[in-house]
Amino acid sequence: MKVTVSRKAHFNAAHRLHNPQWDAATNQQVFGKCNNANFHGHNYQLIVHVTGPIDPQTGYVMDMKVLADLIDEEVCDRFDHKNLNLDTEEFRELNPTAENICVVIWQRLRAKINNPFELKVTLYETERNYVEYAGE
Amino acid sequence: MKVTVSRKAHFNAAHRLHNPQWDAATNQQVFGKCNNANFHGHNYQLIVHVTGPIDPQTGYVMDMKVLADLIDEEVCDRFDHKNLNLDTEEFRELNPTAENICVVIWQRLRAKINNPFELKVTLYETERNYVEYAGE
Amino acid sequence: MKVTVSRKAHFNAAHRLHNPQWDAATNQQVFGKCNNANFHGHNYQLIVHVTGPIDPQTGYVMDMKVLADLIDEEVCDRFDHKNLNLDTEEFRELNPTAENICVVIWQRLRAKINNPFELKVTLYETERNYVEYAGE
Amino acid sequence: MKVTVSRKAHFNAAHRLHNPQWDAATNQQVFGKCNNANFHGHNYQLIVHVTGPIDPQTGYVMDMKVLADLIDEEVCDRFDHKNLNLDTEEFRELNPTAENICVVIWQRLRAKINNPFELKVTLYETERNYVEYAGE
Amino acid sequence: MKVTVSRKAHFNAAHRLHNPQWDAATNQQVFGKCNNANFHGHNYQLIVHVTGPIDPQTGYVMDMKVLADLIDEEVCDRFDHKNLNLDTEEFRELNPTAENICVVIWQRLRAKINNPFELKVTLYETERNYVEYAGE
Amino acid sequence: MKVTVSRKAHFNAAHRLHNPQWDAATNQQVFGKCNNANFHGHNYQLIVHVTGPIDPQTGYVMDMKVLADLIDEEVCDRFDHKNLNLDTEEFRELNPTAENICVVIWQRLRAKINNPFELKVTLYETERNYVEYAGE
Repeated sequence: MKVTVSRKAHFNAAHRLHNPQWDAATNQQVFGKCNNANFHGHNYQLIVHVTGPIDPQTGYVMDMKVLADLIDEEVCDRFDHKNLNLDTEEFRELNPTAENICVVIWQRLRAKINNPFELKVTLYETERNYVEYAGE
Repeated sequence: MKVTVSRKAHFNAAHRLHNPQWDAATNQQVFGKCNNANFHGHNYQLIVHVTGPIDPQTGYVMDMKVLADLIDEEVCDRFDHKNLNLDTEEFRELNPTAENICVVIWQRLRAKINNPFELKVTLYETERNYVEYAGE
Repeated sequence: MKVTVSRKAHFNAAHRLHNPQWDAATNQQVFGKCNNANFHGHNYQLIVHVTGPIDPQTGYVMDMKVLADLIDEEVCDRFDHKNLNLDTEEFRELNPTAENICVVIWQRLRAKINNPFELKVTLYETERNYVEYAGE
Repeated sequence: MKVTVSRKAHFNAAHRLHNPQWDAATNQQVFGKCNNANFHGHNYQLIVHVTGPIDPQTGYVMDMKVLADLIDEEVCDRFDHKNLNLDTEEFRELNPTAENICVVIWQRLRAKINNPFELKVTLYETERNYVEYAGE
Repeated sequence: MKVTVSRKAHFNAAHRLHNPQWDAATNQQVFGKCNNANFHGHNYQLIVHVTGPIDPQTGYVMDMKVLADLIDEEVCDRFDHKNLNLDTEEFRELNPTAENICVVIWQRLRAKINNPFELKVTLYETERNYVEYAGE
Repeated sequence: MKVTVSRKAHFNAAHRLHNPQWDAATNQQVFGKCNNANFHGHNYQLIVHVTGPIDPQTGYVMDMKVLADLIDEEVCDRFDHKNLNLDTEEFRELNPTAENICVVIWQRLRAKINNPFELKVTLYETERNYVEYAGE
């Protein structure tokens, strides 16, 4: 009996989309105002989905407090009120698009949430744009 | 041509997380403030997802009013403004975690929504925590 | 590495549910107040989900501005502030249920978003009722 | 001790903005796509706010079930799944802008919710546009 | 230059509406299913609004972290995961309607947020029902 | 007959809270992680409220398209995808707290929306924190 439990969190960060292998005109053409050299920012909303069996002792797939603490340690404490391009190891070389941020968050959490649990991450960059990654 | 139709509903209930096979200290350690002997409560938000072919006569997978009435009969009329531990058959022995409530709701609806329809239930315990079960 | 990007949009339209092969009493019985001869309407909320690999040059699965423009051209510019039954080619013969509207939107977008991208469309008719179609 | 209680409701309707004293070109210029002769529609969201003293016997300003029933009788049963221009007395002559709909709803409710209660009505035409009227 | 700053918080609690001076039939007639002897519960959503001048040194009316901590101490730590009727001083005698809870929260915060700040409290009992109190 | 019309908009920006008259330790103590030298960011949500009489010719207080265009010109085109501290005239000297941003937006709009219209601005910095200014 496999159930999915989902937990929401959020962090607020600055970023800039930029490919250093391209010249300024190409960056501007591809990334538009997201390429602003002085950065812009977002309230990122995160949903972490963990799928597994219900533990008959607790009635839990996973203790939501444990999951919430893990999200804080691995994601929010690292990215909240940061400049993703300048302040984090992960995005010094990697372009901080929503897609790449979502994959990085999945990878950090996957290192702590092992099989047989399945893991999916949903990341809202704005209310209108969001991305999902499930490790495939 | 398989389409999924989804219908939201809600019920407000009291509950307490507790494993009667454990002593008070273990219950407190595992369930924390959710173990409060006098209960606490939630506005549960429910989404029922039914997948099947579109009926060419109606353009419906299933009449949403029929689905809404079924959710009321099988779920809301039973659980709304109730104490899940004390007032319901289903959770007299079974710990009313979001996971277990979600599975119980799926089972009640599955008895009324037959194959070839697929059924999934999403249950929000709070805005930040939710669970899903699809019968696997 | 497959990631899903999702983009929200909306359009406001009038419609009437009606099967011209049935008499008035049957239409009233099946569609109830949705059969009102003078139409009613909705704020339709749309989410378009595109799944594919991340382009290593851009960090994008698909440029969200390109996707947003495509949704405007193929969906919102055609359906917004329209009477679906009277003003659109698609629903002159086809009953404009949420299910049928969702499939039509999927088909219009599928013609523009080719393999290997996967495509799914979610359509909210109200906050409580929504449908999804992924081409299966 | 004055407290305000607020209750949400909704209705789905078709409408058209039009001033019959103007020619077609002026109507098109002023109302744009909202002037579509075949109508369009909205999911109207309504919030009714009633301000008054707390009854020491009940702890209520007003029983929310009584207020909800009154909103159904005076507003939703009249306007839900209707064409405001064609199916209602109120908007046969009066242009059904959000402003005018809000004032009409306030007037209908004011006839039933007497002094010393204060009354305010909020009406969402879309998620992005809403209006308020308090009788001043 | 007076600006209002608003901060959201939440707590989950069980309660029962009951007037001990009435017999069971009257309580049932007035409070309906909210009178259930075994309690039910809600996710209460709280918004605290503080109005005052902007401090030219900080650009703040009030530090939101200070306000958030105060709400936790005075409200959430006392009411979260509690049975309002059984576990709190405030509602042992006072019927825990949304109106009365809102006034109690306002009084607790007013003792800590002094003039010249103005204070208003909004309390959502469900998504559809909410109350407000501003001390008048 | 005075009605309030409200229009939502949004912009995404980077900022840093800092008082240049203070040393680094004081800035860190007062503004905490909001003082990060490399900036962070938010999805700002804006609601502009205009109160006035209903024009009997149009049924409008103000044409929402005119109001939406004005908000774009005066606010979103200036602040969206910008670093408020580095890229804008308004916040080169003024600390870009939510309170100060809200007042600046009100002042810019007030120059274009004249008496007898009343004007109020609501600005959400996050889902949990928002501010309002009405010119008093």
